[in-house]
Formats: sequence, structure tokens, C-alpha cells
Amino acid sequence: MADESVVRVGLLGFGTVGSAFAEVLAAHGDLAAHGDPAHGDAWVRITHVFNRGVDRKRTHARAKFLAKDVVWTERVEDVLEAEDVDVVVELMGGLDPAESWIRAALNAGKHVVTANKQLIAYRGAELFALAEEKGVQLLYGAAVAGGVPVIPGIAQGLSGDVITRISGIVNGTCNFILSSMESGGDYGEVLKRAQAAGYAETDPSADVDGYDARAKLCVLARLALHAEIDPEQVPTQTIATISAVDFAYAKELGCTVRQVSRAELIEGVVSANVGPMLVPRTSPIAWSHGTQNMVVTSGRFGGDVVFSGHGAGGHPTAVAVMSDVRAIAEGSVQVRLPAKKMKVVGDVVAPHYLRFIVADRPGIVAAIAGALAKVGANIDSILQHRGFGGDRLPFVVTTEPSMSSWLDEAVKEMAGFDFMLEQPLCLQILVVDDRDTD
Amino acid sequence: MADESVVRVGLLGFGTVGSAFAEVLAAHGDLAAHGDPAHGDAWVRITHVFNRGVDRKRTHARAKFLAKDVVWTERVEDVLEAEDVDVVVELMGGLDPAESWIRAALNAGKHVVTANKQLIAYRGAELFALAEEKGVQLLYGAAVAGGVPVIPGIAQGLSGDVITRISGIVNGTCNFILSSMESGGDYGEVLKRAQAAGYAETDPSADVDGYDARAKLCVLARLALHAEIDPEQVPTQTIATISAVDFAYAKELGCTVRQVSRAELIEGVVSANVGPMLVPRTSPIAWSHGTQNMVVTSGRFGGDVVFSGHGAGGHPTAVAVMSDVRAIAEGSVQVRLPAKKMKVVGDVVAPHYLRFIVADRPGIVAAIAGALAKVGANIDSILQHRGFGGDRLPFVVTTEPSMSSWLDEAVKEMAGFDFMLEQPLCLQILVVDDRDTD
Repeated sequence: MADESVVRVGLLGFGTVGSAFAEVLAAHGDLAAHGDPAHGDAWVRITHVFNRGVDRKRTHARAKFLAKDVVWTERVEDVLEAEDVDVVVELMGGLDPAESWIRAALNAGKHVVTANKQLIAYRGAELFALAEEKGVQLLYGAAVAGGVPVIPGIAQGLSGDVITRISGIVNGTCNFILSSMESGGDYGEVLKRAQAAGYAETDPSADVDGYDARAKLCVLARLALHAEIDPEQVPTQTIATISAVDFAYAKELGCTVRQVSRAELIEGVVSANVGPMLVPRTSPIAWSHGTQNMVVTSGRFGGDVVFSGHGAGGHPTAVAVMSDVRAIAEGSVQVRLPAKKMKVVGDVVAPHYLRFIVADRPGIVAAIAGALAKVGANIDSILQHRGFGGDRLPFVVTTEPSMSSWLDEAVKEMAGFDFMLEQPLCLQILVVDDRDTD
Repeated sequence: MADESVVRVGLLGFGTVGSAFAEVLAAHGDLAAHGDPAHGDAWVRITHVFNRGVDRKRTHARAKFLAKDVVWTERVEDVLEAEDVDVVVELMGGLDPAESWIRAALNAGKHVVTANKQLIAYRGAELFALAEEKGVQLLYGAAVAGGVPVIPGIAQGLSGDVITRISGIVNGTCNFILSSMESGGDYGEVLKRAQAAGYAETDPSADVDGYDARAKLCVLARLALHAEIDPEQVPTQTIATISAVDFAYAKELGCTVRQVSRAELIEGVVSANVGPMLVPRTSPIAWSHGTQNMVVTSGRFGGDVVFSGHGAGGHPTAVAVMSDVRAIAEGSVQVRLPAKKMKVVGDVVAPHYLRFIVADRPGIVAAIAGALAKVGANIDSILQHRGFGGDRLPFVVTTEPSMSSWLDEAVKEMAGFDFMLEQPLCLQILVVDDRDTD
């Protein structure tokens, strides 16, 4: 093999994903060395690794998967300006300075593979344009759902449909917390467990408040709905207000609770939001457990398509990075369709679940029903059970499909009722309607 | 747009899928005409349609989706030799004459998009080599699981993993029959319903006996396991011997029954088979219902990835065809990795389910246990229930993991027992073992 056919990778970041990438690449190289023609990754080599604290990283257990002559550096320019780097793999995350690094790499005529969902969500349009101008590829299969190939699956396999909706679970931390709460456990306690297991950060806000999922939703919206939307316009709701009692009532309603990200094209605008929702057990979204991710696309012609698997973690994410690097090494070119700027509306017409914690007394139902009637929301069911103690009574109302903004207004009024012991919780109920196709 | 930038499609077959493809293409064209930049399918046009009985086809309800100046022909050469055809879309199916047509198209320097699983399973290697030699693409996303993008998903998104196993439901007819039987219904009756609904052929053998699924399994094995295997070497088992009582016992075992296709790489050989199997309810494979398809890949680094959706029918299949045509029109090039010839072993080590219909008398358990002990199979559980009538008693034994060939031998002996009223049924029990990844 002539050296010029080797694809040389400059790696930005040797943390969980970067080191797993080195291991995965080495495994392909081993298979190739043992005569497996399909794992010809002797053609891909990591030549440079940029990281802060290089001396510490050199002693990383997975540093053994790197070649002895790899260049370790704390100066990013050593990678971005290297003549012997064909592909820059960016695994640092965040908007800055990652954006300037990726721009520099593209400007230098290097392909870029990134796992950076924030960057693709906020700056994707300009970066794709730059890559096209420079005649190089910018691949980001690892940016959403880690090891689940939803990005190449949509790009290569669903461009023939007219996708009108995407929904799913794209934050493994929230899915771990909520599916653990489903098996019994309070939010605070389960969050602590998730932090101890390394599934949640010390400051869990990006995950539990929906900002991570929102960025991923915007990445998917560009690809599936061809809609360029501003992440800041997508409303989010925290999962921190979900409690054990909500799982009990959800179960009674044939549902569970999951952090769902959804976006739907309705007459030229995108209806989108992220937050905890009631998910019917008949929906594939209710199947996912632990840190799994799941994305469901709904197409006009092909109906619902489900992608699921391990969305996060070093190795699954490294698989996505490796697949993108191999695609470049194999001379593959991914389908890239234009997207146009679209407006986001956060208001959704859907049935809703309202949960109250009240001090029991006469007139509660009348007061709640009155507040809902005032905004034009119809009650679908009222659930109230004994066994929770009369001083703090959980009490649930579900509505027929209503505008979420109407309910926000009603909730604002109801929060002021003197029997209301906590801020009322209002969750969207996901509707399952996969059409039959012929 | 200059005419030379239009991708011109010659369509072989204007049946269910071909006419749906015309409709899907027209929908993209409409969106493009209304200014949607992501559906620029004014760039794709059907210029020729080959079909027998063209006069009848011209009056097809979906013929309106074709341009007025489309060339209808009963001579396939008019398409294969046309100067103004860039992509031949083959939707006739079968090995011959489809193979010679596709060869002619590739030899003429045309790209080919096909939904023909038999052809890709049996002749794929030669055809891919020919396409490469001619510098054109041969795409077949519609050959497996119709509208579910499992083929592009694996090719573009999982080449970075080392996939060791694929399993799933790739025949919608069998899934419809078995999931209907699960809700109550005898095989014969449900088959008639499937035939009336157009889900099953008058001669259902290709579906129910596993030959259709086997071809698809081989297509997936080439892509995911990089294994070129001979479909004829993959053992199949019919679903026609499954009866209502098997669903009752399966339920008691926490399982359901599905036609499963599976292939696994074990030390350089492929262990593969197709047939009805007991599927634990905890497996995603148990989720699929109706005519849905589902494929699960298991990778060394990324764990299990699930793809599911509508596997068959005109529109979902047309979505896959359209996606391939768009990929060609957009200048995309798909990852294509080499595969090597591998041996197939049909023998599987797995727990098994054995169901007997016996005339009740003393000594049955002893006789069956004796036959199993003779081949070295350990009994895991024995299930027998009242309520079925003593003259025809169903009776179930599950085994610990055993070689399927041992059990075949035991079944052969047991079939000769004088109390045995029917041929014993022996089904593999699928083991669920998705690893946690980090």
C-alpha cells in the first residue's frame, strides 16, 4: 500500500470518545492485518492528537492503541495546519473555540468529522456552506444518538420520503432517570445514582432541562424536515418536576413518562418542543429504557420508521465517528439536501395531563374545571385515588386536544388557588398515529 | 435548469411499486415546483416505462403521475439501450431475466437501482464487481425491509463497528400471520385473511417457508458481516406448523412466536437460519406487529441497533427506491466494503421449545426425557395444562442451550413413539443479550 492512500486523522480531544475511537480504529486495523478485506483500516491512521495536559493523556490506558510516532500536542494549530492530516476529528464539544477550529480545518481543505451537536445546531448552515465551497466533507453522524445511525439513515435512506414529523428520545441521561423512576425511585435519588454512574453531570441542567436534546432536535430537523430552525426558539420543559406519583397515574392511563423531543412541519412552520411527556405504551418511544436513544420519523409515504440503540457512551459514539471517517476513506459522498429557514411555534395542539397536589376540601373539581372551561379546554378524564393521605392529595385531569398555551394560562390561574399546595404540572400526551401504508 | 442536469430514469415494471414510485417522484416534483429547495426532483424524470401489456398499464390510475411524453414500451431494449436513460430502476423481481437486463444496463454505463433481493442475494458479488468496473452505482436499498433504511443505515452508519450478528423480521407476510395468530386465530384461517388482504400470495410458500426472508438475510449478511454466503445453505423452517396452542405456551414462557432470520459470525463461519422462533417479550423483535419489519444488528462496540417500520407495500418500497435515485442524482456515493465467501452452518446452540400433541397415558414424560437425555440435551422446564382434552394433549418441554442437530435427532426418535399424535414441533428460543456499552 502506497502511503498516499492512507487517510491521516488529526484528533482533537482524547477523552472518553477520542480514546474509544483510537481503540475502535485499532480493532479494525487488527482485523485487516488478519486478512479481513472489509476492515481495511490500515488505510486510516491517527497521526496527531491534540489535548490539554498531553503528558497526562500519554499515559491514558487507551494511548496504547495509538502508533508510537503519533504527534501529541497542546497547540491545536499543529493539527489544523499539519500537511499530513486529511481529516480532522473534533471531539471537544461546545461552540467556541470548536467553531474556529473547524473553520480553520475546512479552510485548509481538510475533511471534518465531528460529534458536536451544539455546533451543528447553531452554526451548521454556515459550516456546511464552507465545506461545500472548499470541496470537502463535514460529517456529524455522532452528533445525535451516538451509535444509532439515524443521521446517515435519514440522509441516505429517507430522502425519498416527505418526512413531516420527527420525535424521539435523544438524551440518554433523561431516559435513564425517567426509566429508573418508572421502576420506583424519586427524582432526586435517581439523579444522584445517575451522577454516581457517570450518566449525569454534576450540573445536570443541560440534560434535564432539555438544552442538549433541543440541539439534537434541531440537527434532525434540518436533515429530516429540511428546516433550519433556531434552537433558542424551541421551548423546553424540565424533567425535574416529575415525581413518582406521575408514573403511577401515567400507568393507569396506559402510558409512561419520557423526555421527548418532537418537531413537526405544519403548513410551512415547525411546531417543536422538548420536555417530559406522557407516552402511550403502544408507542415505540415507550420501549426505550436505560440510556437508550430512539428516533421515530414519520413520512407521508413510508409511515413511521424507528431507529434505536445506545445513544451515548464512548464506544457507541466512536462507532459513529469511525463510520464517518471510513465513509471519507472509502470515497463515499453523503446526500446533502438544502434546508430553508423556518419559524418555530412552541404551541402544540395535543391532549394534556395535569397533575395537582391539593389540600383536600370541597370545590376543588369545580374550581379546576372552571379554570379549564375558561380557556376552552375540555376535560377527558379525572383521576383521583385514595392511599396518598388527605393533606397532600395528588389529583389528575387529562384534557382533550387543546392548545398548550391555553393550558399554560389555565395553570397560571390554578396555581393561585388556595388549596393548591404545589405548582401544577402540565405535560403533553403524545398521540400515536402511524398510518397504514400500502 | 439545463436539461443535461436532469437525471433520466428508465423504469422496468409499472406494478405496485413502480406506480407508487411514479407517485412519490411526482410529489417531490410538486414540492420543488412550490419552492421547496430540498425536494428538487424536477432533476429526476421518468422517461421510459417498460412493462408487458403496456396498453393496460397506460390506463393505470397512477399513470397520471408520469409525463405525457414518457415512452411506454414492451421491448426492454428500448430502455436498456436508450441514450436518454441515466438510471435503470428494476422492479420486476426474480433472477431471470432481471439479471441479464441489469447486466446490460450496467454494461451500457447506466446506474441501476433495484428492489430485487433474490438477485442481490444470489448474484450480488458479480453485479457489484461489474458496476465498479463500469464506474456506475448499483443501489438496492429497497431489497430488504422496504421503507426501513437498514441498508444505507448499515453501509453509512455502522461500517465503523464490527458487527457480529444480525437478526430480525424481514418478511411482513409471516409477521402479519403470526401477530394475527397471537391475537387469536388458526394458521389456516389467518393465512386466508392475509391472502384476501393482499399480504400473502395464492401460493404462500416463498413467504411462509422462509425463502424470501433467507434471500434478504443473505443481502444483510454481505453488508453487515461482510460475508458472502450461499442462500441455499441457510436452513429454513416453515411457519405452517405453528398453532394457536404454541402462542399460549409461548406467552407462559414470557415469549411470542415470530419468523426470525438470524446470522452470526462465529470464528470465521456464519451460523444462520430462518424460521419461527420463540422471541422473549424483552426483545425488540417481539415489538413488531402487522406487516412491520425489524432488523437488529449487534456490534462489538456499539451494541444492539434496531431499525423498524413498514417493510413492504408499494409506497414504503417506493421511498427506498426514490432515496436511492436521489442519492445518485445528488452525486452521493455509498460506502461499499468488500465481503468474502464464508461457509454457513445451520446448526445452532440455543435453548429450544419442543411441543408435542400426545394421547395421554403414563410414561410420556419418561420417554421424552429419555430421548432428550440420549442426545445430551438438558430439560429446562416441562409445561402441561388441563383444558385441552385428554385425547389430544399438548405438552411442552424447553431445553437448556443445545445443538439444534441433537434435537433434530431426538425429535426423529420421538416422532416414532406410539403416543405421539403429530410430528413434534421444535423451535429455537431467541436469547436476548444486548450488552451494556460505555
